[in-house]
Formats: sequence, structure tokens, C-alpha cells
Amino acid sequence: MNNIRLIEIGEEIHGDNKREASRVRSLLDSAGTTMINLMASPGAGKTSLILKTLEALKVDSPIRAAVIEADMDSMVDSEKIAAAGIEAVQVRTGGFCHVDAWMVMKTIQTLDLPQIDLLILENVGNLICPAQFDTGADVNVMILSVPEGDDKPLKYPLMFRECEALIINKIDFLELTDFDMKKLQDRVLRLNPDMKIFEVSCRTGEGISRWSEWIVSRIAARSAARLKP
Amino acid sequence: MNNIRLIEIGEEIHGDNKREASRVRSLLDSAGTTMINLMASPGAGKTSLILKTLEALKVDSPIRAAVIEADMDSMVDSEKIAAAGIEAVQVRTGGFCHVDAWMVMKTIQTLDLPQIDLLILENVGNLICPAQFDTGADVNVMILSVPEGDDKPLKYPLMFRECEALIINKIDFLELTDFDMKKLQDRVLRLNPDMKIFEVSCRTGEGISRWSEWIVSRIAARSAARLKP
Repeated sequence: MNNIRLIEIGEEIHGDNKREASRVRSLLDSAGTTMINLMASPGAGKTSLILKTLEALKVDSPIRAAVIEADMDSMVDSEKIAAAGIEAVQVRTGGFCHVDAWMVMKTIQTLDLPQIDLLILENVGNLICPAQFDTGADVNVMILSVPEGDDKPLKYPLMFRECEALIINKIDFLELTDFDMKKLQDRVLRLNPDMKIFEVSCRTGEGISRWSEWIVSRIAARSAARLKP
Repeated sequence: MNNIRLIEIGEEIHGDNKREASRVRSLLDSAGTTMINLMASPGAGKTSLILKTLEALKVDSPIRAAVIEADMDSMVDSEKIAAAGIEAVQVRTGGFCHVDAWMVMKTIQTLDLPQIDLLILENVGNLICPAQFDTGADVNVMILSVPEGDDKPLKYPLMFRECEALIINKIDFLELTDFDMKKLQDRVLRLNPDMKIFEVSCRTGEGISRWSEWIVSRIAARSAARLKP
């Protein structure tokens, strides 16, 4: 085992990344942009949730949004976002299994940030590495889809600790599985007692409005904090 | 972006890992053990598939099996395997998002390999990094579950290229999704024309026997190759 070498390299990278994340945060702050870092397993419904959320926000509020799509390969997701008339930037991470603050910095430098109220980063589909890298986002959000099972907090505790909100997607699949919602919630709250939990189905639209309202309140709270003397 | 440094480190590690994987392969070979490296997203059904497969093999053949369970944290999966009366070893990878050949070497040194015909490694739930590390296994197998969607070959091409067999699990969920089996198969075969594809449901048991028969034939082929003068 030569794990120790790997771990040291990792720590050095994490320190540099933290500093770059602070620079991202300053840029977002002076532009008045709220950034959400959305993380989940492959296929949990990240792109679907973004589309449903922005659709809901368009109806209820004048929020101007843009999306950063990160993927190892392919433009599939950014094409879906652009097709819905929303500004999308694709980041191809190559072999990288997560988004770090340097990738975000490089991306936001191509955007007209003062024209964007809400910037959503769709991170790479992965429950492990993305949780280890601060992207500079204001809010970390994760999706867990019902078919993945209720034991995920036991296996990926860091992800559940690093997020402020958990969206449980595909609740329309509940009857086909032995997913125990009470057990899941207990496991999540033991790791992260302040976690906001939203039960949604991107397919049926159930639960989307409650989640979207929370996003609006989060943007408002950030603006209020910025206006404080 | 300081990606270049990261990539160089990765290449060095991959070279060392390849050599350690060869040593794992020699050990398995002299013991007559066939090793399967099972990879998938979190919640795709790795542990369920292992349990169903070993149940099927127990009925039809005298194959002696053991399981290596790799997880970032928790003993959940190895407890399930042990509860079914199968030898299980848990590897806790700590922050690591994949299993490498050093971890396998350390683990198989604790096993009585000549008493094991089939060794199944349940890799960490992740479609990215595990595909980049040779574990020393004879066969790489991946699971894709229907709720994850039919676009995964576009997003995680390396995983589909590195595997010899693909198990499409949760086919009992097909009617609840817009998963297009034909489209999926076309995408997979474009990346990997020799991929063996098995459609199964671990919940209903559908398709498990065909897959189990393939495993038996794979073990037999390996034994025959070993006996050749």
C-alpha cells in the first residue's frame, strides 16, 4: 500500500483549492450571484431537477439563472438546458471525477455574473469526490433518488455532512422499493441535524414548488445580508 | 487551473498500480481463483446481485465463493453477505473513491485462496475512478440500473469500455421510466462491441440464471486455460 503518498498530495491540493474557492466566493459576492453546487449519483435526476426548478422559478419570480454543466465527457446535459432556453456552460472534466474551485473560476470568468441571480453548478455524478472539494458555491445541495436505497448516509457520510439541503427524488418509485423514508431521515439527521429535506418527483412535479420557494428565500437572504451596513 | 500536475501524479500511480495488479493476477492464477471486479453507481444493486448470483451458483454447481466488500465507510454490505453464510472481507477505503491493486493484494493475503474458486470484489459505488484502476481481476463487470437512465454510456465511456459484461438491473422499473433499451444497447456496443449484456431484476429474480451460467462458463474457461500444457 502506498496510500500515504496519495493522501499527502490530496491535502496539498485541498489547501490550494480552499484558497481558490474563497476567490470564487468574492467574485460571486460582488456580482450579487448566488451559486448552488448540486451533487448526486449518476442518474439521480440532477438535470431534470434543474429544469423543473428553473421552470418553477420562471413562473413565480424574476430570477435570472444560468447553469454550469460538468461532465467527464459529452454535452448531453448542457444541450437539454440550452433547449429550455437557459444559458448553459459545459465543463468537460476529462478524467476528473469532481469539480474544483479552479474549474469554477475558469468558467465564471466567461459569464456576465452581474446579470445572473442564480448560478447552478451540476457537478459530476459521484457521491464521493465532489464532497471533498469546495467549489466556492454558497449552498451545497444533494439529490438522493429512491431507487438508490435508504442506506446511502451510512456509506457516503461526508456528502451528507457537506450539504445544506437534501432532495429525495423519484418518490413516485417508493411503492416499487423497500426504501424506508423514516429510516433514511433518521440516518441523515444523525449526520447533519440541520439538513433541509425535500421529497420530490421530477417526473410528476410533486414537491418542486416547496423546494423552489426555499431557493427563492435563500437568494433573498443572501441579498439582505449583502445590503447590511 | 493546475490540472497538469494532478494528471502527472495520476499517471505515475497508474503505472505502479499496473505492476501490482500483475502480482495479484499471478497469485490468483497459482491458487486457481477467478476474480470478478463488480462496479456500478451507488444503489445500482451490487450487493443484491452478489447475493442472488451466489444463491443461484450454490444450487447449480459446487463453486466455493468469497466476497471482498469495499466501501468508504460502514460494514453494511459485508454484514449482508456474511448473514447469507458467505465469507466476506470488508475493505474500508477511507477517503478513496475506488479500489486499487494494493488494496486487493493486502486483502487476498488474508484469504485461503486455494479454497476459493470465485472471488467477487464489490468495488466502491462510483462510475468514474474504479474504471481507471486495474484491480488484478480476471473479469470486469458493471451494473447499470434502469432508473439511472439510458444516457450513461455517453457520460462514463471509460467504464463501459473497461468491462466485459454489463448487467442491466431493475428491469422491473422499466415501465415507470423512459429508459430506451435499444438505444442503450446501441450506445454500449458502439463503445464496446464485445460487451455481453444481461437484463436482470434482482428483486424478481428475472435473468439471474442466464448471468450465473455465464459466470460458471467463465470459471470453466479459466480452469481449462490453466490446464493447457
